[in-house]
Amino acid sequence: MNALAPELSVSRWLNLAGAPPPSLSGLRGKVVVLHAFQMLCPGCVSHGIPQAQKLHRLLAGRGDVVVIGLHTVFEHHAAMTEVALEAFIHEYRLTMPIGIDRPAARGPIPETMGRYDMRGTPTTIVIDRDGVIREHAFGQADDLSLGVMVGALAATPPRAFATEPAVSEDCAGGACAAPASPPG
Amino acid sequence: MNALAPELSVSRWLNLAGAPPPSLSGLRGKVVVLHAFQMLCPGCVSHGIPQAQKLHRLLAGRGDVVVIGLHTVFEHHAAMTEVALEAFIHEYRLTMPIGIDRPAARGPIPETMGRYDMRGTPTTIVIDRDGVIREHAFGQADDLSLGVMVGALAATPPRAFATEPAVSEDCAGGACAAPASPPG
Amino acid sequence: MNALAPELSVSRWLNLAGAPPPSLSGLRGKVVVLHAFQMLCPGCVSHGIPQAQKLHRLLAGRGDVVVIGLHTVFEHHAAMTEVALEAFIHEYRLTMPIGIDRPAARGPIPETMGRYDMRGTPTTIVIDRDGVIREHAFGQADDLSLGVMVGALAATPPRAFATEPAVSEDCAGGACAAPASPPG
Amino acid sequence: MNALAPELSVSRWLNLAGAPPPSLSGLRGKVVVLHAFQMLCPGCVSHGIPQAQKLHRLLAGRGDVVVIGLHTVFEHHAAMTEVALEAFIHEYRLTMPIGIDRPAARGPIPETMGRYDMRGTPTTIVIDRDGVIREHAFGQADDLSLGVMVGALAATPPRAFATEPAVSEDCAGGACAAPASPPG
Repeated sequence: MNALAPELSVSRWLNLAGAPPPSLSGLRGKVVVLHAFQMLCPGCVSHGIPQAQKLHRLLAGRGDVVVIGLHTVFEHHAAMTEVALEAFIHEYRLTMPIGIDRPAARGPIPETMGRYDMRGTPTTIVIDRDGVIREHAFGQADDLSLGVMVGALAATPPRAFATEPAVSEDCAGGACAAPASPPG
Repeated sequence: MNALAPELSVSRWLNLAGAPPPSLSGLRGKVVVLHAFQMLCPGCVSHGIPQAQKLHRLLAGRGDVVVIGLHTVFEHHAAMTEVALEAFIHEYRLTMPIGIDRPAARGPIPETMGRYDMRGTPTTIVIDRDGVIREHAFGQADDLSLGVMVGALAATPPRAFATEPAVSEDCAGGACAAPASPPG
Repeated sequence: MNALAPELSVSRWLNLAGAPPPSLSGLRGKVVVLHAFQMLCPGCVSHGIPQAQKLHRLLAGRGDVVVIGLHTVFEHHAAMTEVALEAFIHEYRLTMPIGIDRPAARGPIPETMGRYDMRGTPTTIVIDRDGVIREHAFGQADDLSLGVMVGALAATPPRAFATEPAVSEDCAGGACAAPASPPG
Repeated sequence: MNALAPELSVSRWLNLAGAPPPSLSGLRGKVVVLHAFQMLCPGCVSHGIPQAQKLHRLLAGRGDVVVIGLHTVFEHHAAMTEVALEAFIHEYRLTMPIGIDRPAARGPIPETMGRYDMRGTPTTIVIDRDGVIREHAFGQADDLSLGVMVGALAATPPRAFATEPAVSEDCAGGACAAPASPPG
């Protein structure tokens, strides 16, 4: 039922503060909260982004939960440019790592957004330590519910390591767009 | 460091819906969120009570997390009567079990409030499956933080059962007023 | 169309700070904002009362606009007593004059509430310098709209005094039929 | 004390819906609320712009109060472009007329912002029927206060027309020294 999270396709990372670019495969073993937004999406600006940033501030020190912003521009491409995003990040004092979803070869939907089949922004995706999608919510996620889910996943150890590599292998590349196989 | 939660002293329960009156000893093995409030406390009405009620709605179906309201009247006793609390519960559509903290033989501080040495209202106390106080916060608790804590505790199994009975025994009765001994 | 505001029927005033009990007839020539509330009405506590209190703070120094709270208890009479209201006023730091709507000889609806045919609480009634009801809103009134109306009425001089007695005498419309008893 | 409002210098108007570009001289006789913002200014997005838009919706039908947005870009010029502003207006469903403050020949401060000596964004400026600045507020303006002021000015007829040209000519006080260039 729950699918393995396809890898992120990011054309550029911001707010890395010297750290190497994150990847879901590299973060296996940690809980990942992925917040997909657009800087001109009202619901993102008023609710989703502050929530993600707050969760990042709250949990960044723990090391076992990682919050990642993803700028999934699927409309107004000429307005939501990289330089605009940089200004946005500066003005809203965002400190979590933020990836720019890589534009697709065809069509307005960027690659990661397409892989996850997101309906729009804001979208909150929670991935457990085994790389499995445990929540995929379009719209405003409730603070308490999100907190409970993240707290529970963070307190849950990963499953047997043996099942991981096989699954992980399937997901190395663009083929992850359709993670048909069930999680281990 | 973290103390075993002293037992509740409640003169009357509301919103039980036919269930037996809860006790912390009876809830051992579950996570308990205790929300101490006064119906005329502005911070309780605007933030704490809605938060507790929301958490109750969110988690009541799970069976392993219990949210309990505690009406800890320490001022304006003539105003915050039982009949007033009943009307308050009705108007604010509260459905979580709510206990009336038993008035003390002397002084304005009711018994449970005294046992926990609460500074005032709202106070949020989170108790783990082993009966240990994991959070004691005076003032407005943050939704995300509270959610993460509750989620984590709910995903954590209780410790060795062997240590429980002994501790539990010490706490059977009014003697819990001074939980001087450290948690197991 | 707009009816003359019936006089208030108040059994007791709070927050007068030594001033004589207000009456609408005595306030003729000033703009009056009447906020009818119940202390256990959620919409009053979260929105209406803070709005009235803010308007009071904002305009009390001007002398030509008067904000009056009216505790119109029509349910839970045993809960919303005078001593409870006093505690409520203290806890919520209310400083505007607040009248307790006089209980009716029969039925749960107090006298002023009946005279104005209020649907419930919160109700905001704005009365112009001539004593005419210019707004009667049940539910949450919008800050900007209320501000514009009050500002406009405050900037409008009263009409010719000659026309007042006539209007006052027959009350012009069916709405005035209710206040049969003379004001206190 | 209160200075005559310097004319707007706008490089392009949006949301005119076919109406001719507004000018303060052309709006003399009406109350004008000028909301200066930047699309990447958090306080503008969360408070100032919704307030201005709400005031516009509330009063646009009256004809005697005009709400004007002014995009006063003084930082991140490469991010807050015209095409970005168009997308912003679309996403936030803004319908009030919005002018783009004309970039100055030198320096980052656009012309109108310079003429009014604005400290930043959001800035709310209220201009009475005589073209006199009655409020110049930097930061978040309170809804009730703004409403009362606008309502009062809208209910106040303009002064004697004879005094206008004289005031307009020399601008009466030192504060008008800034708008050296003639209005458009």
